[in-house]
Amino acid sequence: MANGKVYLIGAGPGDVELLTLKAVRALAAADVVLLDDLVNREVLQFVDPAARVIEVGKRGGCRSTPQAFIERQMIRFAAAGKVVARVKGGDPFMFGRGGEEVAALRRAGATVDVINGITSGIGAPAALGIPVTHRDLCHGVTFLTGHTRDDTEPDWAALARSGTTLVIYMGMANLASIVAGLLRGGLRAATPAAVVQNGTLPSQRSVVSTLADVADAVAQAGLGSPAIVVIGEVAALADVQQLEPALAAVA
Amino acid sequence: MANGKVYLIGAGPGDVELLTLKAVRALAAADVVLLDDLVNREVLQFVDPAARVIEVGKRGGCRSTPQAFIERQMIRFAAAGKVVARVKGGDPFMFGRGGEEVAALRRAGATVDVINGITSGIGAPAALGIPVTHRDLCHGVTFLTGHTRDDTEPDWAALARSGTTLVIYMGMANLASIVAGLLRGGLRAATPAAVVQNGTLPSQRSVVSTLADVADAVAQAGLGSPAIVVIGEVAALADVQQLEPALAAVA
Repeated sequence: MANGKVYLIGAGPGDVELLTLKAVRALAAADVVLLDDLVNREVLQFVDPAARVIEVGKRGGCRSTPQAFIERQMIRFAAAGKVVARVKGGDPFMFGRGGEEVAALRRAGATVDVINGITSGIGAPAALGIPVTHRDLCHGVTFLTGHTRDDTEPDWAALARSGTTLVIYMGMANLASIVAGLLRGGLRAATPAAVVQNGTLPSQRSVVSTLADVADAVAQAGLGSPAIVVIGEVAALADVQQLEPALAAVA
Repeated sequence: MANGKVYLIGAGPGDVELLTLKAVRALAAADVVLLDDLVNREVLQFVDPAARVIEVGKRGGCRSTPQAFIERQMIRFAAAGKVVARVKGGDPFMFGRGGEEVAALRRAGATVDVINGITSGIGAPAALGIPVTHRDLCHGVTFLTGHTRDDTEPDWAALARSGTTLVIYMGMANLASIVAGLLRGGLRAATPAAVVQNGTLPSQRSVVSTLADVADAVAQAGLGSPAIVVIGEVAALADVQQLEPALAAVA
């Protein structure tokens, strides 16, 4: 193999200023850039104008580019000696399938470097003033996804008893069933809960509510994906002064 | 109050290239920089040479600058119209006491902006090739601290049953008791476990072992703080080729 290489880059929650210096350097070095759906297109300002840019997420109602096809593309470009930047929202190693992609690339003999990004589960709550940990309020924080591969449910009772803040990625489609599971598992109905859509972007919207009421609050405010759900006492630290005026009323 | 402002900045796990563009911009704008112990001093390359730099962590055997004193300093400088950059390792909102500092600053009338950093609990494992989540191996990831304020123990049985990867910050002093708690809580003795000291820095060292053996492996290798402990199936994905040669033998 020539000197090809793949950078698996986390672009963070949205705000282009949350890119790391390392990500910017890799973007500038890339011959080929594979852009995921949720990545802010402003990252292209750091890409060489001669580089080839390929969109690999769902756009305009089309279905996602299949994962296997994306992996084959990366392997092919790397084998041809190209520097490939595969750019994902958030962090590639937090619900980003980065582990699977690294394994596939290494099996094919490609060199791969992972460049962490700010994960949306930390960055989006922070944009609302919510620290996901607070030593007076929780033992730590658990990050979960609302979509599991095999549709098995997490052990909600164990999660409720963990004493950790719960942060849920991709949880909007199943929000009602997640809430039901946590209530059944023993979390108090009055537990603070917040939802942040498009966190850190100018289009950011949010609601702050309680576990029992959050699904209704989301529906009433018309929030949709991509969004991060935060459940736990820390959600009450949301800075309501920073809330979008119309939504502060909902909260 | 004049136009003073406090930036609470996460510097990431160590590698200075993991700073965000936003952090670099805030460092460049600062009149006063308060540097925590665990922050890579290379961040100073982005600071105005005319800025005042104050070390606020433990150095050379001295005790930490008390938290209340640091908060008073920030409030005083901001009230005097200064731009203050408070730089912490990792992310200020992940076991960084960022929530407490934001609250103290706002109570005092200061303007404060939080700038997320790559948290060490994601970045240090990644430096060893470990993705903290993997859809085939876990339901998500839980981040805990080995030091609790009140010395109460987490509910180890609930954590063991959560089906999530466990990542422990500041866990080296209590590693044996954490392991004992998780074994008592029902985690298998053969559960993969990895420890990364100084993750992402040239001084990075690590061991990959099992839950039952990790405390011995750490002692044998002479690993110390600051380190991140990863417990769960994903720890077996550590890229042993990247391990330091002497430590790969321990693994």
